Amino acid sequence: MTAYDVILKKRNGGTLTDDEIKFIVNGFVKGEITDYQMAAFLMATWFRKMDPRERAVLTVCMLESGKKIELSEIKKIKVDKHSTGGVGDGVSLSLAPIVAACGIPVPMMSGRGLGHTGGTLDKLESIPGFSVELTKERIIEILKTVGVLIMGQTDDIVPADKKMYALRDVTATVDSLDLISASIMSKKLAEGMDALLLDVKTGKGAFMQKYEDSVALAKSMIEIGENLGKKMLALITDMNQPLGEAVGNALEIIQSIEILKGRGPADIVKLVKIESAYMVMLGGQAKDFDEAQKKVEKVIADGSALEIYRKMIEAQNGDGRVIDDYSIFPQAREIIAVESQEEGYIADIDAMGVGISTLMLGAGRETKESKIDYAVGAMLKKKVGDYVKKGEKLADFYVNDKRRWADARAKFLNSYTFSKEKPQVPPLVYSLVDINKVEKLNIAR
Amino acid sequence: MTAYDVILKKRNGGTLTDDEIKFIVNGFVKGEITDYQMAAFLMATWFRKMDPRERAVLTVCMLESGKKIELSEIKKIKVDKHSTGGVGDGVSLSLAPIVAACGIPVPMMSGRGLGHTGGTLDKLESIPGFSVELTKERIIEILKTVGVLIMGQTDDIVPADKKMYALRDVTATVDSLDLISASIMSKKLAEGMDALLLDVKTGKGAFMQKYEDSVALAKSMIEIGENLGKKMLALITDMNQPLGEAVGNALEIIQSIEILKGRGPADIVKLVKIESAYMVMLGGQAKDFDEAQKKVEKVIADGSALEIYRKMIEAQNGDGRVIDDYSIFPQAREIIAVESQEEGYIADIDAMGVGISTLMLGAGRETKESKIDYAVGAMLKKKVGDYVKKGEKLADFYVNDKRRWADARAKFLNSYTFSKEKPQVPPLVYSLVDINKVEKLNIAR
Repeated sequence: MTAYDVILKKRNGGTLTDDEIKFIVNGFVKGEITDYQMAAFLMATWFRKMDPRERAVLTVCMLESGKKIELSEIKKIKVDKHSTGGVGDGVSLSLAPIVAACGIPVPMMSGRGLGHTGGTLDKLESIPGFSVELTKERIIEILKTVGVLIMGQTDDIVPADKKMYALRDVTATVDSLDLISASIMSKKLAEGMDALLLDVKTGKGAFMQKYEDSVALAKSMIEIGENLGKKMLALITDMNQPLGEAVGNALEIIQSIEILKGRGPADIVKLVKIESAYMVMLGGQAKDFDEAQKKVEKVIADGSALEIYRKMIEAQNGDGRVIDDYSIFPQAREIIAVESQEEGYIADIDAMGVGISTLMLGAGRETKESKIDYAVGAMLKKKVGDYVKKGEKLADFYVNDKRRWADARAKFLNSYTFSKEKPQVPPLVYSLVDINKVEKLNIAR
Repeated sequence: MTAYDVILKKRNGGTLTDDEIKFIVNGFVKGEITDYQMAAFLMATWFRKMDPRERAVLTVCMLESGKKIELSEIKKIKVDKHSTGGVGDGVSLSLAPIVAACGIPVPMMSGRGLGHTGGTLDKLESIPGFSVELTKERIIEILKTVGVLIMGQTDDIVPADKKMYALRDVTATVDSLDLISASIMSKKLAEGMDALLLDVKTGKGAFMQKYEDSVALAKSMIEIGENLGKKMLALITDMNQPLGEAVGNALEIIQSIEILKGRGPADIVKLVKIESAYMVMLGGQAKDFDEAQKKVEKVIADGSALEIYRKMIEAQNGDGRVIDDYSIFPQAREIIAVESQEEGYIADIDAMGVGISTLMLGAGRETKESKIDYAVGAMLKKKVGDYVKKGEKLADFYVNDKRRWADARAKFLNSYTFSKEKPQVPPLVYSLVDINKVEKLNIAR
């Protein structure tokens, strides 16, 4: 068997054997298969796709390229959540402590942001002292005492994914359902979870812009997980406009604390509660959605979720006082209001455009080397369907470096589309997917 | 513009601008675009194809990556021929001296063989002393005095093709009509020819196995050439069975000399004469095919083509006495007859299988590093449609190293299929293609 044979077979639309997939993944990780052969293989896979068995084998090969986090001594069902990412998607930050407060261990492994979507790890690092690197012993200890942690992926976890992703990123082979599924699932399987809730975003600000593609991605990941004995659920949720009000690192952490204090913007609060409830069900702590919802409401109302958030921050060396005193976060030099230049109903907010406007001010990474300014970002004041007058405030921008302010402001304003008629507002949650079916939920914002 | 953008555009089925094609080819040649990005681009191109303008621009970019041979001081129309390659396809060897004898300068640049098809340069190097490397001054001198030369591609000719071909060869992106067309045409345009006859092989032993694909390849190359002011013709010829009798290096040179002596196997003699006549027409030395045919017959009959062959060999430092004395060629230790194990009509001869059987004995290269044994090969005694009895001779094998003889013999015998009924014999020449039309010729063997 040679790499050439495997590339040719996939290029010609063939279905690869287990051995062929192992050969290409292991060979690439060992450096026996070159970057250019892997690039040709990835592009051929982008075009020809994989069947469920090929995807499952690819996932397992990638998983077995590295170490797994061994959490079997934590006896309860460990539940994690993965979001395919979007602008203002700080759901995990509030959800993880809520679910832990409901008695479910949450070993969450998250990523960093690149481009217009922020990364959970970057957001957490806006808390002074917060560390996303944890030893194996410390992981077990935190899960036993606090019940939740949010950490980065260590270097020995799924090295195949790191190497493949770096190549996909520069060869236009990122947006492949097969490769995304294997990449996400191999990492999630390596972290020792027993059940996983997927939040697959759909819409203009998402990876998968079409609803059908998002459902297909959800199904693909559910199949991989269930075949390996994991309990899997997915929600298809909207990313046609930013979620919540905050876009930026410290701003999103503050928003997540506000949510646990019973405040926060209606749309993200609603989504946090829905997702938390499904995780409580996955964790076996509620027999139905109603019971799960009640538990979620209770741990927010009694402050126990907030307390767990504080403990998690402290367990990860962060300054827990941020829960009560937001002045501890890095502060922006100026808050600049951006006002509407038009009058009418907001018909559309391009989430990607909004994300890029904050990125231009330093809230995200334009290249892998960029340094993030944790203080900067925007607080959005209006949602799709709101009526605004000319001169009415659309957002407060938190700004330090004003060199690109004019461009950022223009980019932001260009992200809004107005109409005379009241537009149809897309739902917050489209549907629930499990191994057997797709259930339409159509939960409004 | 980034390589990523160009890969993505082609992957998504876009049509590239002139600047995008220049950017990717020039960047790759300069080493600014990596092998893995080029591999992804080539695979995306394999899938999405190119339109005629993209192909033409790609060809010119590749051509301009290196030097051109400046032959404008040779005032006559310089005509070359290119074959897409096949087993026993030694047509060029006889054709080049014939066309030169008709008064047309033939600056022929050829390649080496890899795999089951032999290369013209390898065949010529079986002549003691023969050199395929010529200086610019020597090229002009030989064209002025002898009128014909067959040389190798120098390193400064189309470096983009060398670099791209090396990558295509290991990433399963060789068999792309667009990339083949640009590769062949960029090299032919660099050698300073004014007109080109293409021999596009079709059938089981050819690169393009389907007739329609062969016609498409011919049209694609004709369009590129005509757009750049070259006169172009193509013949679609059969490669469902080996051409001629000789398969092997010295054996094919001897066969080419025999043809110029008025002997040689009927099928290859016929094809040499047809192709030579079309080249005479391209060179403006005949007003129609009949007149061209007569000129070709004359230069064979009067020995002038043979004399030019001798002069060309000598001009390229080869031993011209080989024309009269075949014992000067490297000699095989043994000639072993291979007899038919079956009785019946030969329904099929797998040209690739026959090629591989001689390759196993050292007649070709299995890897780029293999050393060719010029003496070995086979003389085929039967053609498709012939009736053979059990024990009747199918071929004489010229053998030196007998270590793989049993396997080679088995491979050879396996290449023959027999039938009780007399089979339909595919024509020798299917059609003639020019910029305006495809004309069915269906010339029988």
